[in-house]
Amino acid sequence: MKLKGTKIVLNSIPAGIPKKDDFRLKEFEVNEPVDGQFLAETIYLALDPYVRVTMVGRHFFSTPKEGEVPRGSTISRVIKSRNSNFNEGDLVVMESGMQSHSISDGKEVHFVKTGSAPVTTALGILGMPGFTAYSALLGPAKLKKDDLVLVSAASGAVGSMVGQIASIYNARVIGIAGGEEKCEWAMNNASLDACIDRKKDDIDQKLTELSQNGVDIFFDNTGGDIQNIVLSKHLALNSRVILSGMISQYNSNKPPSGPNLGNICKQRATIYGFVVYDFEHMRESFVKDAVDWYEKGLLNYTEDLVFGIEKTPAHFIKLMKGENFGKTIVQFMDL
Amino acid sequence: MKLKGTKIVLNSIPAGIPKKDDFRLKEFEVNEPVDGQFLAETIYLALDPYVRVTMVGRHFFSTPKEGEVPRGSTISRVIKSRNSNFNEGDLVVMESGMQSHSISDGKEVHFVKTGSAPVTTALGILGMPGFTAYSALLGPAKLKKDDLVLVSAASGAVGSMVGQIASIYNARVIGIAGGEEKCEWAMNNASLDACIDRKKDDIDQKLTELSQNGVDIFFDNTGGDIQNIVLSKHLALNSRVILSGMISQYNSNKPPSGPNLGNICKQRATIYGFVVYDFEHMRESFVKDAVDWYEKGLLNYTEDLVFGIEKTPAHFIKLMKGENFGKTIVQFMDL
Repeated sequence: MKLKGTKIVLNSIPAGIPKKDDFRLKEFEVNEPVDGQFLAETIYLALDPYVRVTMVGRHFFSTPKEGEVPRGSTISRVIKSRNSNFNEGDLVVMESGMQSHSISDGKEVHFVKTGSAPVTTALGILGMPGFTAYSALLGPAKLKKDDLVLVSAASGAVGSMVGQIASIYNARVIGIAGGEEKCEWAMNNASLDACIDRKKDDIDQKLTELSQNGVDIFFDNTGGDIQNIVLSKHLALNSRVILSGMISQYNSNKPPSGPNLGNICKQRATIYGFVVYDFEHMRESFVKDAVDWYEKGLLNYTEDLVFGIEKTPAHFIKLMKGENFGKTIVQFMDL
Repeated sequence: MKLKGTKIVLNSIPAGIPKKDDFRLKEFEVNEPVDGQFLAETIYLALDPYVRVTMVGRHFFSTPKEGEVPRGSTISRVIKSRNSNFNEGDLVVMESGMQSHSISDGKEVHFVKTGSAPVTTALGILGMPGFTAYSALLGPAKLKKDDLVLVSAASGAVGSMVGQIASIYNARVIGIAGGEEKCEWAMNNASLDACIDRKKDDIDQKLTELSQNGVDIFFDNTGGDIQNIVLSKHLALNSRVILSGMISQYNSNKPPSGPNLGNICKQRATIYGFVVYDFEHMRESFVKDAVDWYEKGLLNYTEDLVFGIEKTPAHFIKLMKGENFGKTIVQFMDL
């Protein structure tokens, strides 16, 4: 008799902010791995904003159809292997998506390497979000001492690592976050020198006060109005803009217009459409540096973790409404 | 008695497309050079779109006030020198602006080096426009064999060099130009593989037909609708966008909104706010290559030249209306 698994499938492609009705829970029969494959069970599922983008076909990852399983990074345990690189019991980070079991050929699968840090950090500060901050800052953004760095969604999984890494490199960091609580957390934990509350402050005016000559690096996780204001008026000469995420528009089917690019010429700025998957060559140095920083007590993080696969849709909706706080994770089973 | 010169000054800062009334001709007394300076007389004045941008303060060059002389690159002859690097009779390229005489300390002044080509090419294919095309393509755009290059304002001074240099490097080139006559000229002289007539063709549809996977390099001289269409829908994976000029908005006081940048992330593209003055380290190789290409018969160009400083305003207005054809030059005196 075949093993039974559980998965979340799309009832319909969400319009606007996803609703619970857009998802349903479904049982399925788990297949056996064939030669070269392994079977893994999901322990932790990370919920990340890019998953919403795939649902409307604006991501380079494939678009899930109705009845299919949405994507998602997971910490999984190998339970049966016919691939000589993976053994039963191995903990790996992979893209299993919103399901209890999945089969892989081992491509783009990484072993969990978190040193003395908790396993879930492999989905956060020591995983894809941390690696995104690291490879963008030290790669195209050319982070250097005394740079003025501006990061949007500064309390988020990526944003809070941007602040902390920039600070380790002795740059100054301004964050933008949504609400007093997130600003306070980011000031205390994400090494910010100042935080702008996008729900209360006039962003344009605050940036004028905080950065006379504009910012050297703008690490953008939100897009939208924040991006328009910064790109039009607050870039320093020869500044670097990292387009890492545009969560402000992930729920809309028709993206709004963007900033006029005249100021990009004037400031001789560069805008990078940044995708972490292009920076595999930096992964080894990232893991080494990040584990080292963690063990020296230099990295803070917070998690918003719930237990039970059935809680996945509600937790994802919370993330897409901006109501989450810290790295959004669903635990499917005990470690 | 002092030497009398003639200059064009701004009557008022133009609103919209400049009008003749925005300028007036004025006599002035020419000063004597002091130690370290030289005095030069203007032979040819180049009219370039960036001059319009300086008038509304959106350029990194200073903004001329009412009563002041608008900028402009010139070919000038040294007539009196107290700078040991410059001798009477030397022909130089400098930024004298719209006036018959000017004094310089020699900074950012280059000797005319055009080999067997006519002197005026120092303002076109062998000067700033050619150097812009060359340094952007071989610098940040990382031009390589078989790239698909798209260039707007393809019959212009910069655009036509983009086509020719890309073609010398065995790339494929699509141009966009305004009207049948410009398209025909660019097909025959700027080494285009195809030309889209922005006044007649549906640009989006034409680009879909001509480039299934999008363009590898977009060399943008116009901004506006063309930029919005290309950046939203016609970029290849890992493409490079050179923002070289945005002539479509130089006459407007309030720039329109721009393209949504979501597609920049999706295509992992990079946008460079390109300014030729950052690439002085490539000047020597440019002059060598470009003179060599000219002497091998590989470079075509056309000029739109009028004689007499008093014709400057009308000729500049023609350029800003897009009615010019080829490099726009005013000759002030015989060579």
